[in-house]
Amino acid sequence: MKSETSSGWMTAAEIAAAVANRTMTALDATEAALARIAQRDATLNAFTDIVAERARNRARAIDAAIARGEQVGPLAGVPFAVKNLFNVAGLTTRAGSKINRDLAPAKRDATLIERLEAAGAVLIGALNMGEYAYDFTGENFHDGPSRNPHDPTRMTGGSSGGSGAAVGGGEVPLALGSDTNGSIRVPSSFCGIFGLKPTYGRLPRSRSFPFVASFDHLGPFARNVADLALAYDVMQGPDSDDAACSTRSIEPVHAALAQGLDGLRIARAGGYFAANLFPEAREAVDRVAKALSITITVELPEAARARAAAFVITTVEGASLHLDRLRQRPNDFDPAVRDRLIAGAMIPAPLVDRAQKFRRWYRARVLELFRDVDVIIAPATPCVAPKLGQQSFMLDGVELPVRANIGIHTQPISFIGLPVVAVPIPLEPMPIGIQIIAAPWREDLALRVAHALETAGVACAPRPQTF
Amino acid sequence: MKSETSSGWMTAAEIAAAVANRTMTALDATEAALARIAQRDATLNAFTDIVAERARNRARAIDAAIARGEQVGPLAGVPFAVKNLFNVAGLTTRAGSKINRDLAPAKRDATLIERLEAAGAVLIGALNMGEYAYDFTGENFHDGPSRNPHDPTRMTGGSSGGSGAAVGGGEVPLALGSDTNGSIRVPSSFCGIFGLKPTYGRLPRSRSFPFVASFDHLGPFARNVADLALAYDVMQGPDSDDAACSTRSIEPVHAALAQGLDGLRIARAGGYFAANLFPEAREAVDRVAKALSITITVELPEAARARAAAFVITTVEGASLHLDRLRQRPNDFDPAVRDRLIAGAMIPAPLVDRAQKFRRWYRARVLELFRDVDVIIAPATPCVAPKLGQQSFMLDGVELPVRANIGIHTQPISFIGLPVVAVPIPLEPMPIGIQIIAAPWREDLALRVAHALETAGVACAPRPQTF
Repeated sequence: MKSETSSGWMTAAEIAAAVANRTMTALDATEAALARIAQRDATLNAFTDIVAERARNRARAIDAAIARGEQVGPLAGVPFAVKNLFNVAGLTTRAGSKINRDLAPAKRDATLIERLEAAGAVLIGALNMGEYAYDFTGENFHDGPSRNPHDPTRMTGGSSGGSGAAVGGGEVPLALGSDTNGSIRVPSSFCGIFGLKPTYGRLPRSRSFPFVASFDHLGPFARNVADLALAYDVMQGPDSDDAACSTRSIEPVHAALAQGLDGLRIARAGGYFAANLFPEAREAVDRVAKALSITITVELPEAARARAAAFVITTVEGASLHLDRLRQRPNDFDPAVRDRLIAGAMIPAPLVDRAQKFRRWYRARVLELFRDVDVIIAPATPCVAPKLGQQSFMLDGVELPVRANIGIHTQPISFIGLPVVAVPIPLEPMPIGIQIIAAPWREDLALRVAHALETAGVACAPRPQTF
Repeated sequence: MKSETSSGWMTAAEIAAAVANRTMTALDATEAALARIAQRDATLNAFTDIVAERARNRARAIDAAIARGEQVGPLAGVPFAVKNLFNVAGLTTRAGSKINRDLAPAKRDATLIERLEAAGAVLIGALNMGEYAYDFTGENFHDGPSRNPHDPTRMTGGSSGGSGAAVGGGEVPLALGSDTNGSIRVPSSFCGIFGLKPTYGRLPRSRSFPFVASFDHLGPFARNVADLALAYDVMQGPDSDDAACSTRSIEPVHAALAQGLDGLRIARAGGYFAANLFPEAREAVDRVAKALSITITVELPEAARARAAAFVITTVEGASLHLDRLRQRPNDFDPAVRDRLIAGAMIPAPLVDRAQKFRRWYRARVLELFRDVDVIIAPATPCVAPKLGQQSFMLDGVELPVRANIGIHTQPISFIGLPVVAVPIPLEPMPIGIQIIAAPWREDLALRVAHALETAGVACAPRPQTF
């Protein structure tokens, strides 16, 4: 077990069990994670901050509590890390930017960090990300790109690129990221791991740096479904510090995994989602459809317009958020992010009003689909991870810019707040993910399907050959 | 009683009682209203459409039902009219415009018309209004101005100008209008009548022509509080045809009027609302404050910014709604309305995003005030009705355009959807209104205060000397 710990392939649940059983100390788990990061991060560039002393103190406190015979949480001793847009007490919340480094250090951890630590998890550090989360590649202009654990010459995807690299590369079994247009699902797909973008309003965003408040989501990454569900369950619940956070009571999902596929009506998304695909993405969806014996195809109406509307609202709300910084420090932005935000600053408002009206129409139409099905399968990304720096690719015979089109299949879903589990399909040489999409508040259904695929061996987070 | 019917000063409740008691027929009430309109509307210019045959048929049906001994509703035989943005089956919904006259006639009445008629009321016709409701004066560019019943050389206020003239001038005891930034409260104030702008989402807007969907309200006008409450009660309730209409169950208010002021904590609005006033507006608020023995003053925080934000959102949502018409038929608009909409079409979207964020902040702050008070008194308009065509006035020593500033005290309230009763104070020679503002869904409290003021003789709808 020691070598598994050192190599980083124990699951969060295994670590927590070993720590609780005293076959491993939380401090050992922490030191092993720190050692892996020291060794691997020169390649992965996943971490921007390490909080080693905090982590060791926290681990010692857990070990002491166990020695006193006290109850510890379901994630006791589990190392985790967070995208650097989460507040970590004592660190400056850089949100991938240069500009934010001039802010004062955060005084208090983000709510989700507090909840994971209350369950026994140990925060190890903060993770690289695309500037201000306005990114699909994971190539940070200031900190350098995070690199794909399966091929460090390739992108991790973004904007939660460090989260994808750290979990996919075995540095930590658990990480948090954010997803506005695909920033959890894209790195999950490219790095070959599981990711959960919950229903909009489910997990509180208190004390994290925003992007597009009306469709910003936070969520976990892991290398298996049970860990994802465990982490999600301890993070669920109302939080008055985030006005958009639902007051719905907690509906635990971990126990539901065992229910399998019984009674679930599963469809695949056709039309828009059956196009705009490289062969590997088609192959991944086909494998899943076959494994689940899917016979139904549903079409999300006007998905291309939904993506366009998501683009418009994103750039405008982003520009609104950054307007003062754009005026005062234009040269301190990633130039590509700056240009997108300036474009957003000049969009005439009635177009956005129309996009919002369309959004309400589209959401209502998509929700109607869930009268007849429980879960919808769609590609997560059109391709496996592109090469770092790659500017264009051919999609259905058309040359398109990579960055803007990586999220072609994720944007029409997050835009209306549906819960999605990104599930890795271990193709060779590079993995690729699919989306399992459910109706609002039905994370449990998407996770059950993910778990069934994992149990059947169709989905898994492959170990990189590098480490 | 016949002469009162003919002159138009019976209340709706009196008409309904007389019809139910068979001391008057619904047909007589209808013919009397049609006769008054024929006589007075050359002066008032309140009506754009009369549906005489429909009204007579409806009245005969009510009389027949009564003759058969059937139950009739609480508004049996009461004539009413609606702003011409309500769909009336068989009429084209012009919404004060020239352009909309090319549309097909409506196939079905607006929900609120259906509900009033289900209660026995009789629709007489449709009423003049400012073009597309983007107006505070009641001066329609195409149909001519509606004229104030107390002085036909003066404005009715708008945009529900015909509603104000028709009720204030005794043509009908009841009318419907809409209020986005003040379009019920302003004509109520200028024409010396009662008006109710309910909580946003309370009365369904189905089959009416919109303006700013996020703060469009429909509501009734009457010459006394009991009629207002009666009409409101029969119109209340969910309607799936208006997505913004609340699913809350009906909370009747008419019976609550008798409760008087017992236990109510009443404040007057200070700061912004105590400034920007002509002496007559100050006098009206002082009279009310004295009558209610008000000792508390509350300040709505950042009310001037709230009005600015309401302006920005109005012009942008209006421009969004009319964008195709602006492109295709610019010369068919009222030129002043067109210029406002074109300005709105070019506002950069991030400014609106910021206005919306401010709006959420402001709403939360204002709602906090209602922890300590139940009702807030404020002016409805800064002055009595200006002269038709008047372009500017002096407000606190500054020369300002009339049209844009008539709603200075109404805009910061409707923008966040609070219920308001506009109450007429019978100053000489021209009446002026005040606003009685309550927390969302507490129309009952505002109506109780209005009723107490009416009972005390402080508030009343004065009879014009003209008729």
